[in-house]
Amino acid sequence: MSTKKFARESAVIMTEMVLPNDTNTLNNLMGGKLMHWMDVVAAIAAQKHSNSIVVTASADNISFQEPIALGNVVTLKAQVTRAFNSSMEVFIEVTAEDIPANKKVMTHRAFFTFVAVNENNKPSRIPELVPETPEEIENFQGALRRRQLRLVLAKRMKPEDAVELKSIFNLD
Amino acid sequence: MSTKKFARESAVIMTEMVLPNDTNTLNNLMGGKLMHWMDVVAAIAAQKHSNSIVVTASADNISFQEPIALGNVVTLKAQVTRAFNSSMEVFIEVTAEDIPANKKVMTHRAFFTFVAVNENNKPSRIPELVPETPEEIENFQGALRRRQLRLVLAKRMKPEDAVELKSIFNLD
Amino acid sequence: MSTKKFARESAVIMTEMVLPNDTNTLNNLMGGKLMHWMDVVAAIAAQKHSNSIVVTASADNISFQEPIALGNVVTLKAQVTRAFNSSMEVFIEVTAEDIPANKKVMTHRAFFTFVAVNENNKPSRIPELVPETPEEIENFQGALRRRQLRLVLAKRMKPEDAVELKSIFNLD
Amino acid sequence: MSTKKFARESAVIMTEMVLPNDTNTLNNLMGGKLMHWMDVVAAIAAQKHSNSIVVTASADNISFQEPIALGNVVTLKAQVTRAFNSSMEVFIEVTAEDIPANKKVMTHRAFFTFVAVNENNKPSRIPELVPETPEEIENFQGALRRRQLRLVLAKRMKPEDAVELKSIFNLD
Amino acid sequence: MSTKKFARESAVIMTEMVLPNDTNTLNNLMGGKLMHWMDVVAAIAAQKHSNSIVVTASADNISFQEPIALGNVVTLKAQVTRAFNSSMEVFIEVTAEDIPANKKVMTHRAFFTFVAVNENNKPSRIPELVPETPEEIENFQGALRRRQLRLVLAKRMKPEDAVELKSIFNLD
Amino acid sequence: MSTKKFARESAVIMTEMVLPNDTNTLNNLMGGKLMHWMDVVAAIAAQKHSNSIVVTASADNISFQEPIALGNVVTLKAQVTRAFNSSMEVFIEVTAEDIPANKKVMTHRAFFTFVAVNENNKPSRIPELVPETPEEIENFQGALRRRQLRLVLAKRMKPEDAVELKSIFNLD
Repeated sequence: MSTKKFARESAVIMTEMVLPNDTNTLNNLMGGKLMHWMDVVAAIAAQKHSNSIVVTASADNISFQEPIALGNVVTLKAQVTRAFNSSMEVFIEVTAEDIPANKKVMTHRAFFTFVAVNENNKPSRIPELVPETPEEIENFQGALRRRQLRLVLAKRMKPEDAVELKSIFNLD
Repeated sequence: MSTKKFARESAVIMTEMVLPNDTNTLNNLMGGKLMHWMDVVAAIAAQKHSNSIVVTASADNISFQEPIALGNVVTLKAQVTRAFNSSMEVFIEVTAEDIPANKKVMTHRAFFTFVAVNENNKPSRIPELVPETPEEIENFQGALRRRQLRLVLAKRMKPEDAVELKSIFNLD
Repeated sequence: MSTKKFARESAVIMTEMVLPNDTNTLNNLMGGKLMHWMDVVAAIAAQKHSNSIVVTASADNISFQEPIALGNVVTLKAQVTRAFNSSMEVFIEVTAEDIPANKKVMTHRAFFTFVAVNENNKPSRIPELVPETPEEIENFQGALRRRQLRLVLAKRMKPEDAVELKSIFNLD
Repeated sequence: MSTKKFARESAVIMTEMVLPNDTNTLNNLMGGKLMHWMDVVAAIAAQKHSNSIVVTASADNISFQEPIALGNVVTLKAQVTRAFNSSMEVFIEVTAEDIPANKKVMTHRAFFTFVAVNENNKPSRIPELVPETPEEIENFQGALRRRQLRLVLAKRMKPEDAVELKSIFNLD
Repeated sequence: MSTKKFARESAVIMTEMVLPNDTNTLNNLMGGKLMHWMDVVAAIAAQKHSNSIVVTASADNISFQEPIALGNVVTLKAQVTRAFNSSMEVFIEVTAEDIPANKKVMTHRAFFTFVAVNENNKPSRIPELVPETPEEIENFQGALRRRQLRLVLAKRMKPEDAVELKSIFNLD
Repeated sequence: MSTKKFARESAVIMTEMVLPNDTNTLNNLMGGKLMHWMDVVAAIAAQKHSNSIVVTASADNISFQEPIALGNVVTLKAQVTRAFNSSMEVFIEVTAEDIPANKKVMTHRAFFTFVAVNENNKPSRIPELVPETPEEIENFQGALRRRQLRLVLAKRMKPEDAVELKSIFNLD
């Protein structure tokens, strides 16, 4: 296995139409259905980077501002931002389009993490990820900070050890 | 509408069986499907507290440690932890059971928030929530801190104003 | 395996929202979908009593009086009423709620039976069931009569031997 | 509207393949899924007789003897047996086939009833049903007895008034 | 295995109701969903002729003229038209009914081909097909011409060798 | 509405994972499911070109050579090839990937046509399509020939008038 891969090699695009069963009483896409699609597209990106089976390890805080209406076309773009030993962070960006009305809105941004596993469900090593564009580099750098937040929230890291994380609270 | 309701009045229990289409290559429940179920059960709890249509506002960081296998019975319990003007935080606890093997594991804990809306999709006032048991009181108190974290992460609050949040970093 | 279990140990609660694809032309829940949910919740109750794989053996006469509307929340409660050698009767009670309108109606009551089987699909012995509350005791006692009706209807018992059953026709 | 229709005019055939999500742990069709299909095919037969919207009124006792395996082809035949003022009884016969193995088994027989309704959900008059073949005549005659059993079980008829029903218990 | 079978032995009827998730923005059945049903019913017909596992080999040009509305009952009839060594052509005829309005329209005609395979996915020999009725004979004869068109379109036959096909262009 | 649009403006990418319910007895994707996905992705491309509601008008002959296995990732790319008054031809290319095995195969190529309609289901004018790349130009030119074949097959054009079509039979 090559030991390095570019971020763009993991890029995946998924397109879905919002059908009646995906909507709530207001005819808008249910949040849970969107998270389900996010998980699928992000898992495929993680598979592409690791050429391995992957399992979801975490989903970061997701905020739902924009309602997405019945009949809209939803485009989900996913790309791995950074690889650790056997885990990866994936960035997902969601756009909703009312095509007949010619309206297109970037509605959601989210980060999921995945672990590459072998057939016995044991973590396996994955290639390093090499970011190229400014956005990829920014996401690569922010990945450390988001990782510390996850560990603190899961009570697997002491807050005082979360050196990178402190920066978002302007503490040092 | 009564202006106060007890936490327990919003309690909902949902039970699902893990079917083949819900699973990944390792025959374990996909993370996205679980988030979908979490959103449904939590939305019903929020409906019960507010007697109103509700829309998902956010899902907090979720960590997936335990795989849940094909054929397992998944029980999701949801209850509102605290009400604000028109929004609510809901706590969800997930248990997975392999009944023939007599094994039962608490697998996930998550927090979602919802906004109560009227038929024009405008926020509407909801009753105050009154916690009673020690666990309900703890969740009620923690809700403020989690809310500040959400606002900081969504860049809608400055970290230095997140007074409650700082406590998890032992900063004051 | 313990040879006795309480009725309440098998209790299961399932909650479903009525989605567009579950409804007929009048926007009410289709009867067949409700029977499908009844079968799932009852099978889980039977699994919990027997700690075994179970297969549906019969569904008793079900009467559909109350329509359940699109968007309603349906709660199904199931509990084993009585255990025989390898088969169990399960009682299911269905409630439908229009939560924004604050209306809740008990809509259906049904009895299903299940057989506990091993991995070769052969019946296996199950624990005795011990009823405790007055309602559990009533359901336990009625189970014999319902069983005779099933056997007579399936032409596996002669009507004149259905001693318990005759009581509903006030014949003796 | 014509005031009489033949039984055969309501005949419907539905064919389904048993897919993974329709099966239990033993890879056999779940009882609830089969009842769902029965309801759909029987509703179409009732629609054909009444040329009207119909709603399920009841499902008679169903016994599940034969397991139906993953990959089997299930054929459901439905036909109205008798019409009352605004309600109909429908007979459903289920056959399961393992086509590569050249095995075909008649697995289930069931009776459902439906009410014809107008767009305001009010019962509407339907044509009389005219049976022709010996089997149709037998089903037509038995319909009265099954109707009384339904009414007695639903506690809407006193057992002593169920004149037709008594015959199955050889009481007179 | 018998070496000859009649066309009618492979006849299959499938009935489906158009549900909300099957429809587009105009509340009409989506073309892709109809093709999915066509494939299922035709595969069962091919299984019945060959008593074998079958895989789809091709779908001929399908023209969608008549929209089929939400709530309509769709009847698909399929029958094998001709057998080659290990492949079969299947004819599918689709009818849509608005039963309350008493309207029934023949909406689609299509041809699919299937290959019979053994468990290692290798083609296996199938019985000859014997047509009986005038329509079966016409379909049997046209099968050769349609087969040449498929081969030409797939670039596996030179147009000048497609002797049968030329007849539709009145060229000889 | 602008009267010209580039072919690339209609490009859509859809990604799907093959789940258990999508597969046949050999654990390969069913042809009908693939056609369903093709129809959805092509309809979105047609919507993007026309900024209008669209309905499927036809699907050209599709040949299924390569089986696609359970767990594979299927990528469908669609792009409009040519616009006529109110109808469009869309080209779809399907790739299947077994990512852990690092295998990727171009499995299918298909052409669908769509009609742009207004809310009363009447055809509406659409922009001209301008091809740019050599492949787009080739598809643009071939569209006339494929259109004549569709019209001849649907018996709406006499074969002798199908001037473009004759070229594939090397007749002039």
